[in-house]
Amino acid sequence: MCESNVYILKNGREELVLEGVDVLENQEGQVKLVSMFGEEEKIKARVKNLSLVDHKIILEPV
Amino acid sequence: MCESNVYILKNGREELVLEGVDVLENQEGQVKLVSMFGEEEKIKARVKNLSLVDHKIILEPV
Repeated sequence: MCESNVYILKNGREELVLEGVDVLENQEGQVKLVSMFGEEEKIKARVKNLSLVDHKIILEPV
Repeated sequence: MCESNVYILKNGREELVLEGVDVLENQEGQVKLVSMFGEEEKIKARVKNLSLVDHKIILEPV
């Protein structure tokens, strides 16, 4: 179970976008997330960093 | 153990960059990778997609 929670950095704070994310795709100016529950989310952002040991992916707005 | 192997897409083929990656940081025009073995790698690329269930992160050159 290696899913990660995805957060977006806003004003220095991490806001949860989607939990249990399995798949992330970088698309034109946005990121598409798909969770282990089949939920999808698209957000205007890019990957800032990720720490798999912490199950955490941080996005930043574009 | 949720580390992933990181590949870069070159001419439609996936070339292995670093195995067992725990941490990825998107820096100015490059990506810094740190593996569970303490190895570090910097590469001029950005995240294209990732599939955590497959333990796979794909980069593309910038």
